[in-house]
Amino acid sequence: MTSRARSGAGRAGTARTGTAVVAGVDVGGTKVAVILVAADGTTLARAVRPMRTRSAPDGIEPIVNTIRAALAAAGTAVGDLVAIGVGVPGRVEPDGVVRLAANLGWHDIPLAARLSAEFGVPCAVGNDVRAAASGLLDHEVAGGIRNLAYVAVGTGIGAGLVLDGRLRLGSRGMAGEIGHVVVEPAGVTCSCGQRGCLETVASGPAIARRAAEAIAAGGSSVLAGVEPLSAKAVYEAAGAGDPLACAIVEEVGRALARAIVGLVLTCDLELVLLGGGVAGAGSVFLDPILNHLAELRAGSPFVAEMIPAGTVRSLPPVFDAVAWGGVALARTVAGTSAAPGPGAAGPISL
Amino acid sequence: MTSRARSGAGRAGTARTGTAVVAGVDVGGTKVAVILVAADGTTLARAVRPMRTRSAPDGIEPIVNTIRAALAAAGTAVGDLVAIGVGVPGRVEPDGVVRLAANLGWHDIPLAARLSAEFGVPCAVGNDVRAAASGLLDHEVAGGIRNLAYVAVGTGIGAGLVLDGRLRLGSRGMAGEIGHVVVEPAGVTCSCGQRGCLETVASGPAIARRAAEAIAAGGSSVLAGVEPLSAKAVYEAAGAGDPLACAIVEEVGRALARAIVGLVLTCDLELVLLGGGVAGAGSVFLDPILNHLAELRAGSPFVAEMIPAGTVRSLPPVFDAVAWGGVALARTVAGTSAAPGPGAAGPISL
Repeated sequence: MTSRARSGAGRAGTARTGTAVVAGVDVGGTKVAVILVAADGTTLARAVRPMRTRSAPDGIEPIVNTIRAALAAAGTAVGDLVAIGVGVPGRVEPDGVVRLAANLGWHDIPLAARLSAEFGVPCAVGNDVRAAASGLLDHEVAGGIRNLAYVAVGTGIGAGLVLDGRLRLGSRGMAGEIGHVVVEPAGVTCSCGQRGCLETVASGPAIARRAAEAIAAGGSSVLAGVEPLSAKAVYEAAGAGDPLACAIVEEVGRALARAIVGLVLTCDLELVLLGGGVAGAGSVFLDPILNHLAELRAGSPFVAEMIPAGTVRSLPPVFDAVAWGGVALARTVAGTSAAPGPGAAGPISL
Repeated sequence: MTSRARSGAGRAGTARTGTAVVAGVDVGGTKVAVILVAADGTTLARAVRPMRTRSAPDGIEPIVNTIRAALAAAGTAVGDLVAIGVGVPGRVEPDGVVRLAANLGWHDIPLAARLSAEFGVPCAVGNDVRAAASGLLDHEVAGGIRNLAYVAVGTGIGAGLVLDGRLRLGSRGMAGEIGHVVVEPAGVTCSCGQRGCLETVASGPAIARRAAEAIAAGGSSVLAGVEPLSAKAVYEAAGAGDPLACAIVEEVGRALARAIVGLVLTCDLELVLLGGGVAGAGSVFLDPILNHLAELRAGSPFVAEMIPAGTVRSLPPVFDAVAWGGVALARTVAGTSAAPGPGAAGPISL
C-alpha cells in the first residue's frame, strides 16, 4: 500500500504535456538501457548508463537515473510516463520481486514496487529473455508470426517461448530453459550438475574455456597469451581465420543448431530469433549455425519441412530486445494502479 | 454442404431419449475403440472392434459399426448422440481430413465429414496423441494441472503439449515431435534422415531391432530364436530377468529419461504422462525411466527442482487415453452444425 500512496503523491506533483509514454528498461550486469515509447510505437528517446551494482547494493538508483535521462532526452515530463516495464537477468516473482539475479548480486529486491513508488506509475518486472520474446511478438521483426522463440546466447543460454501468440511461462515461469538441455551426453559437467548441457558448449564462458583448454593442450592460435580470454576474442580470431578459433565456433554452431532443431520440433515454431552477447559477434556467430542447419536439412526431409531456410535469424545488432520486452511488460500494466503486473516472471539461468 | 444436409435428415429420423452423449473414438492400426460419455462425464458404454483397414480401404465402416455397437451397449438411441470426436494415428487437417495415416494406409480421407454425414452430428478429428493430451487435461488423472505432456511410446514416439491449460499445436499442428529429437548424436540413422533420434532408441521397432542385433552379435538371451522379435517380447524377457533384455530396457529408460528432462526444461511442465503400446509393458517399462530420473536428480539440484519425484507417471493400463481425447474433441464441436472442428490436428510421426 505504501507504493500506491507514494504513487499518488508523485503524480500530483508532476506536469503532464499530453504524450503518454511507457519506459522499457533493460537491466544488465554492466549497463542499464531505457527506451521511451509512445502509444503508437514511436521510440522517443534512448538512454544508457553504467549499472554500478557494486556501489549501490540494490541497483535502483542507476535505473531511476537512466529513466530520468531518457525522459529528459525526449523532452518528456515525468507526468507523461504511464508505465514502466523492466527485464532483469534473473528469477522474478509475479509480484515484481527479483528473487535472484546472480550477475547483479541481487536477492529479493522489490524492484517493481520501488520503481512504481519513485515514478508514481505501475511497473512490471520480468525475466529479461522471456520479456524480450514477448516484446518481439508485437514487433515488426516477428512479422505477425504467433509461434516463435527468442534465444539469448550470452553468459547463459535461455529462450522465451511464444506459442499461439502469447508468452508461455510454464508451471514455474521457467519455460525455455534450453541452456540445460543435454547436447553432449558424454560432455563436461555443468554448474547445474548435469553433463553436456548446451551451456557447457555454447555459452560465452564455455567458448572462452574451450579456447583456453585447446591452447593449453598445445594448440596454435593468435589467442595464445590473450588474457582474459573471452568469447568475443574467440569470435574475432575466428573472423580473422584463426584455425583453432574456427574449430571452436564450428562446434558451438553445431551444438546450437542441434538445440534449435530440438526446440522447433518440440514446440513447432515458425521463427527462432537469436540475440544476447555472444550473438553480437554477428555473421561469424550465425553462419556456423546456419551451415549446420543446412546440413541437417540436406540429410532429413523432415528437418527440411520443419525448419525451412529463413526460420533462424539473428536480431539486428541495434535492436534493444530486452528494452522492447520492457515496453511489452509496461503495456500490460499501463492504466492499472497496482505496482506489479503478472508479466514475464522467471529465471533465465541458474 | 452435403454433410450438413444429410445431418439434418439423419437427426429428423432418429428418436431421442433425453440423455445427450458424445462418442470418443480411438482409431488404431488393428482396432477401433469407442467410449460413450454423458454430459456429466459418466462413461455409458465402451465397444471395441477390429479395424480391418485392408478390406475397407477408407476404414469408415468399422468405425461406424463400433460407434453403433457402443450406442446399442448403452441402450442409447442414435438421436441422443450429439457429437463425435476421433483420434487418428496420423496427420489430420483442421477440417477433419486425414492427410496421411501410414499405419492405416490412409491418404486424404475426409473422416469428419463422412462420420458427420453418417450420424447427423458434428464430428472433429485430430491426431491421436495430441487429442489424448487434450483429453487428459479435463480428466481427474491430471489433477487440475495446466502444464503437462502426454508422451506416447509405441511404433513411433510423440507428445501432446498442454501449456496454460490448452493443447498447443504449434505452427503446423506438429508440436510435440520429440521422437525426432536427437538423443544420441553418434547414433544410428533414423527414417527421418537424422542420426540418433529418440525413435531410433526407444520406439517399439527400435527396441526389437536392438535386441535382434545384440543376439546376432552373439549375445545370450531367452529371446534367441524368437520370431518375430517384438518390444513386448523384450520387456517380458526383461521382466523375467534376462540380462540382454534388461540391458536394452535400461538403455531405453535412459534415453526416455533424458528426452523427458529436455521436454520439461523446454516447456516447464508439471506432469508427464506416459502411454502407448510400449508403455503398456508396465513397471518394467516405467521403472528404468524413473531410476534414471532419480540419478539425474541426485546429480543436479536443478533437475531435482524442475522434475521432482512424481512428475513422470504411466497412465493406468485401462485408461483409454485416445478415446478420451476423442471425447474432448467431440465437446469442442457439440452444438455446432458444421462437421469439422478446429480440434487437435497434426501428425504424430513421419
